[in-house]
Amino acid sequence: MYFCTMIQDTIVALATPAGAGAIAVIRLSGSDAIAIATAMFNAVSGKKLNHQATHTVHLGHIKEGTRVVDEVLATIFKNPKSYTGEDVVEFSCHGSNYIQQEIIQLCLKKGARMANPGEFTLRAFINGKMDLSQAEAVADLIASDSQASHQLAIQQMRGGFSSEIKKLREELLNFASLIELELDFAEEDVAFANRDEFQKLITRITQVLKRLIDSFATGNVLKNGIPVAIVGEPNVGKSTLLNALLNEERAIVSDIAGTTRDTIEDELNIGGIAFRFIDTAGIRDTSDTIEGLGIKKTFEKMEQAQVVLFLIAATQLLQDKTATQIEIEKIKNKHPQKTLVMVVNKIDQIQTKQISEVKNIHLPQKTVLIPISAKTGEGVETLKTTLLDFVNTGALRNNDTIVTNSRHYDALLKALEEIVRVQEGIDNNLSSDLMAIDIRQALYHFGEITGQVTNDELLGNIFANFCIGK
Amino acid sequence: MYFCTMIQDTIVALATPAGAGAIAVIRLSGSDAIAIATAMFNAVSGKKLNHQATHTVHLGHIKEGTRVVDEVLATIFKNPKSYTGEDVVEFSCHGSNYIQQEIIQLCLKKGARMANPGEFTLRAFINGKMDLSQAEAVADLIASDSQASHQLAIQQMRGGFSSEIKKLREELLNFASLIELELDFAEEDVAFANRDEFQKLITRITQVLKRLIDSFATGNVLKNGIPVAIVGEPNVGKSTLLNALLNEERAIVSDIAGTTRDTIEDELNIGGIAFRFIDTAGIRDTSDTIEGLGIKKTFEKMEQAQVVLFLIAATQLLQDKTATQIEIEKIKNKHPQKTLVMVVNKIDQIQTKQISEVKNIHLPQKTVLIPISAKTGEGVETLKTTLLDFVNTGALRNNDTIVTNSRHYDALLKALEEIVRVQEGIDNNLSSDLMAIDIRQALYHFGEITGQVTNDELLGNIFANFCIGK
Repeated sequence: MYFCTMIQDTIVALATPAGAGAIAVIRLSGSDAIAIATAMFNAVSGKKLNHQATHTVHLGHIKEGTRVVDEVLATIFKNPKSYTGEDVVEFSCHGSNYIQQEIIQLCLKKGARMANPGEFTLRAFINGKMDLSQAEAVADLIASDSQASHQLAIQQMRGGFSSEIKKLREELLNFASLIELELDFAEEDVAFANRDEFQKLITRITQVLKRLIDSFATGNVLKNGIPVAIVGEPNVGKSTLLNALLNEERAIVSDIAGTTRDTIEDELNIGGIAFRFIDTAGIRDTSDTIEGLGIKKTFEKMEQAQVVLFLIAATQLLQDKTATQIEIEKIKNKHPQKTLVMVVNKIDQIQTKQISEVKNIHLPQKTVLIPISAKTGEGVETLKTTLLDFVNTGALRNNDTIVTNSRHYDALLKALEEIVRVQEGIDNNLSSDLMAIDIRQALYHFGEITGQVTNDELLGNIFANFCIGK
Repeated sequence: MYFCTMIQDTIVALATPAGAGAIAVIRLSGSDAIAIATAMFNAVSGKKLNHQATHTVHLGHIKEGTRVVDEVLATIFKNPKSYTGEDVVEFSCHGSNYIQQEIIQLCLKKGARMANPGEFTLRAFINGKMDLSQAEAVADLIASDSQASHQLAIQQMRGGFSSEIKKLREELLNFASLIELELDFAEEDVAFANRDEFQKLITRITQVLKRLIDSFATGNVLKNGIPVAIVGEPNVGKSTLLNALLNEERAIVSDIAGTTRDTIEDELNIGGIAFRFIDTAGIRDTSDTIEGLGIKKTFEKMEQAQVVLFLIAATQLLQDKTATQIEIEKIKNKHPQKTLVMVVNKIDQIQTKQISEVKNIHLPQKTVLIPISAKTGEGVETLKTTLLDFVNTGALRNNDTIVTNSRHYDALLKALEEIVRVQEGIDNNLSSDLMAIDIRQALYHFGEITGQVTNDELLGNIFANFCIGK
């Protein structure tokens, strides 16, 4: 394999985010990592780095000739007790761009080469420190921005998912061997594999695969955020509502300097679950009739959403209840599968006794009405709870395995397809040799998930999405 | 002192640049650092963090209750062998924003508080790990973006400058004590201080102070870059010249991912020295006469420059040599102190024999003419060498102490003022009691540099400019 020949050399990369900061970490990994680091590092203690024990930290200077490049901490990890499973040295230096470059350049001069994206993790995989789905979870973990996506990635990284797959694969592999053994004794018509046990296993595998495949819908939504469309006329209080929802959640973020807020933009984190709010603002500017709601673009955006919030002002609703009812019916008819929430805003502008009148409006089936005041905050908590209730977070809380990766989902679908074929084989008393082919195919797809079966193209695709330095 | 009472508690901050990356480092410092870290960290080895030796690294999980927040490396540094001189724990975690926040929040819950900008370095200063000028050099080092500014910061951080000041201060302090002792025995008219030795010391101090004060002009320029104005009509090839100068130097930067290029913009690094090119493009758009060069704004910009490059096309020069001569004379007359370089561009558009004609133009005194072709690159190296020659880099190469900090410069000026007064005292046989006052004043200003004399306002100003986490 191409990737295996690559791991002869020693790689170097900046492991911390680019830019100036208090400190930066530069990571060397490979058989020459300690030798390269020793050649450029003068410990204050006077002791050579290559004489130091694993998992120890040393203060010293990086020098190029007589010129001091920086005062750094060098941490040494000896093979196999490191992230990559190779010898690793990490330099923790002053975080100037100039120094980062100088140290990396010096490592290159001493014989290292720049690491490719994800190459440290790739080496960890090749050296058996983690399986492929765990390696993929590392990238997910770094990208995680909500409690849910973080928990899913941590769970996967710690092997929850792949250990289940691996166990099933092993059991299936045992049967495959036994069944293939029967082929060698074909003329004697012996059966090494207990057909009852085999049927039990296939049933169990089918159940597990179906459960995992089903979990993908939840997993995908938890990982990427639940798409919510807010529909409503511009002056209906959409921004105020978004701000009201945002306030609390962002407050936690705000006392940590440098947290980029732009990235969450219209993404809200409610109770650890990410909700992606889809902007439909301004679309109804031209609508002077109820028909205006039918504007094509709004419906397109709503198509992407899993939940639709239909926002309307309380006074407007009370003015023309029939019109409002027609409006909401239209939305429901167009999108019968979507969760529809009618949010009646600005209840601070009506009398308390009118609220029951608001609630009294006739709603389509499975539609919820929530009266709120985005301005005063009344009802906003109820709205949040309602949104959270739509998410099937049961699985997450029960620590069930959830599939979040579409590559795994594909492999699971293919594995199920083969298992169904194996089941048909059992049902139809298919000959062992034909059944063995189907079992091998299923095993192949199981192996794809954990990386027991792999190829360069697949690895290339997976690790190309990593950042450099990981 | 206010700052001294602050260091009772344990501080936490992100030490690596904000944003997502392969890894992030979160730093805890203070008397509870190890206890806080122990409470939230489960080592894979099962051993408690507070039972581990200093300068060791441990793999484990950060947990909040039963929930795993991340798999991290925890590095332990025990007081006084740490950056701050206090107990320090560094968590190296997966570099997602979410995880960074979760870990910091957890530290806060366990009793740490968010660190102020530069507070780790402030503590290092208060705990005697470095003096004030060394602490200031840490910030300079992080901001350094050229070899020169980097070398100056490293030199200062390693104490080259302050050890010189401290030595002089100590010697002066000895004499101050002896002279003050004389006051106690005033009636007996004894002289404990050898006046010859004292005169020698004052002479030496005067020389050192003058040298250091003189070095500031160089130091400031090396630290901040040498301002160079390029003057010339828009079509004269200014951008092409900048690109030609840039190409090589930026190439080194370009193979390291994530290095922000925007920050250097019009700053060029030639031979390790930063040159800041001041844009005067477009200013001469309206000039259809030579008088047009007199436009106020161009001259204003030139005022900031130390070097002025007057760029002209070779063909244009040959067309009207007299006009060109008048033009360059005007610039020289307006700015007699500035280094003026006449860069004759586009020599690829004239015949080789015409180059001597170009060179033949009459130039004002101390003005250099360099024929180049920014397009082909001819002469660009000569231009670079010429620019470098203008910089007095001798001091930098000789490892002489160079002052780069305007606070130090001010203190040195004030110290010199007092030393001059002491000298006058010696010359005029001033009484010991009056002389002692001047010496104490000089000592005060020396102490300001190294931080032996300080106050909260000063410390506040210095450390407010640091980043959080340093």
